[in-house]
Amino acid sequence: MPDAGTGLALETPQASAPVFQRLVVIGAGLIGSSIARIAHERGRPGGDLAAEVVVSDSSPAVLTRVAALGFADRIEADPARAVQGADCVMLCAPVGAFAGIAAAIAPHLQPGTIVTDTGSTKVSVIRDVAPLLPPGVRFVPGHPMAGTEYSGPDAGFTTLFQGRWCLLSPLPDTDPAALEQVSELWRRMGAMVECMDPAHHDRVVAVVSHLPHLIAFTICGTADGLAQDAKGDPSRAEVLKFAAAGFRDFTRIAASDPVMWRDVFLNNREALLEMLARFMEDAQIMAGAVRRGDGAYIEASILNGRRIRQGLIELQQA
Amino acid sequence: MPDAGTGLALETPQASAPVFQRLVVIGAGLIGSSIARIAHERGRPGGDLAAEVVVSDSSPAVLTRVAALGFADRIEADPARAVQGADCVMLCAPVGAFAGIAAAIAPHLQPGTIVTDTGSTKVSVIRDVAPLLPPGVRFVPGHPMAGTEYSGPDAGFTTLFQGRWCLLSPLPDTDPAALEQVSELWRRMGAMVECMDPAHHDRVVAVVSHLPHLIAFTICGTADGLAQDAKGDPSRAEVLKFAAAGFRDFTRIAASDPVMWRDVFLNNREALLEMLARFMEDAQIMAGAVRRGDGAYIEASILNGRRIRQGLIELQQA
Repeated sequence: MPDAGTGLALETPQASAPVFQRLVVIGAGLIGSSIARIAHERGRPGGDLAAEVVVSDSSPAVLTRVAALGFADRIEADPARAVQGADCVMLCAPVGAFAGIAAAIAPHLQPGTIVTDTGSTKVSVIRDVAPLLPPGVRFVPGHPMAGTEYSGPDAGFTTLFQGRWCLLSPLPDTDPAALEQVSELWRRMGAMVECMDPAHHDRVVAVVSHLPHLIAFTICGTADGLAQDAKGDPSRAEVLKFAAAGFRDFTRIAASDPVMWRDVFLNNREALLEMLARFMEDAQIMAGAVRRGDGAYIEASILNGRRIRQGLIELQQA
Repeated sequence: MPDAGTGLALETPQASAPVFQRLVVIGAGLIGSSIARIAHERGRPGGDLAAEVVVSDSSPAVLTRVAALGFADRIEADPARAVQGADCVMLCAPVGAFAGIAAAIAPHLQPGTIVTDTGSTKVSVIRDVAPLLPPGVRFVPGHPMAGTEYSGPDAGFTTLFQGRWCLLSPLPDTDPAALEQVSELWRRMGAMVECMDPAHHDRVVAVVSHLPHLIAFTICGTADGLAQDAKGDPSRAEVLKFAAAGFRDFTRIAASDPVMWRDVFLNNREALLEMLARFMEDAQIMAGAVRRGDGAYIEASILNGRRIRQGLIELQQA
């Protein structure tokens, strides 16, 4: 720090001080291990995200791997021990595990601690976690919309959240200061932060993420099942051989983590089933048009669907 | 040709001579314009694909564009005039136009001419074209499994078929010499050639290509329709903003040419509807599992679908 002591050109304390003193990451998969990596690599000792990063995971094998990878200042198998003295606890496990984790850690959270999360559903997380937190603990539900088809502690990387959205769904009584601290944490990890009502969040992600994943899992399963049926069907080898003709586009997201996605489907049930029902209606209407040879309907439907792609290109996201 | 006259190290006539003297490409979209570009750029005059490339298209605007792009030796609006003196005619229009084109050109084909095509369906193409061809004309139905989400004469490029499959579906009475000439043409364009029974071809492409496209068109339409429904739905702007969460993977193939795909759906009706029905069954079973909270079924289904992706990775296609 060449300018230390001159009083000139010092970084502001807000920019250089860590957002949290002790950040506890529970669940060291793709998301959790990325957060811990970023915190760890942003300058040690100290750093501008967290002065200390504690990582906990229910899997001993994962914790052993975390220790080997070296991105945690401390690892702790027991989440109740992990959260002691924490000023921020980030739940990064599959959302189906949140109620159990919240019950385990609640008695050990000190007043003022921020509890936040990275779960892909927000209504269920608030339902499962909020009632268990003791008074004085500040809850900031969150969802970084980032990921890859890889999972586990080796899959994380420090640029995962760069330029990606992180949606926060504060409760009516969420402390604004806590909301700002969590927002600042995500901004320092490169994310763009936006607040969204939990129920609306769940409907948005049902369309843009959960339904596409369900469809991708399903069509991969349909293709995989063909070879076991009557002869004359395309074989699995043929599906793989000719996958580049369109099928392959569906397989990337179908490789995502099964437990995480099982929990997402079970915890965004209503919105997902509604969006799936709409899609199935549309697919049935398309099937009817194909069956009766209604070329005008088919062409109009394709043109309609293309507008979404055009919108993406215009947004320069594509 | 430094070795000309020495009798040594000469290229074989088979390798240096063009496969065809006059190749007529009917339909100058992505596929047709790519073929014409390759033939044109493989050394003029002559080249090893075709000594002369004639391009015909039903759209005057497309033909004007082809003339400007300069990859045709000659352009011809009337397909009957275009095919005169041809030893190979390649049908590259949407498959719904094939019957009309075949009727128009049939009286003008000289005996021995090879007629081949690039249509994505083979049973319908054989049904529509074969009965119209005069005796002595040799028919070699084909399907290069290559494409992008772009269309029209500007979309073609010379490496489109490199390393891609071209499936040929010869009839029982297809002349083996004609089959070999068309195979050689595709090999010289970089493709890998394989023969497949027409009905089996249509079932294979229904799974690996037509069903994925139908699903992609449909989910894009479903998302596009949301904004017009009751309030509380995700808006179109939100779908676009957060598309990277999974939805975006579906939009690339949904941008494909509407007329081409309308014709494909209408001309592979039975196989497509059967594969769609299987997919819909699987999706309904998944919906039931989500509704009743059957986590074990959901997880097992996801794991099952992931096997396809694993197979792709093992094939190093992914």
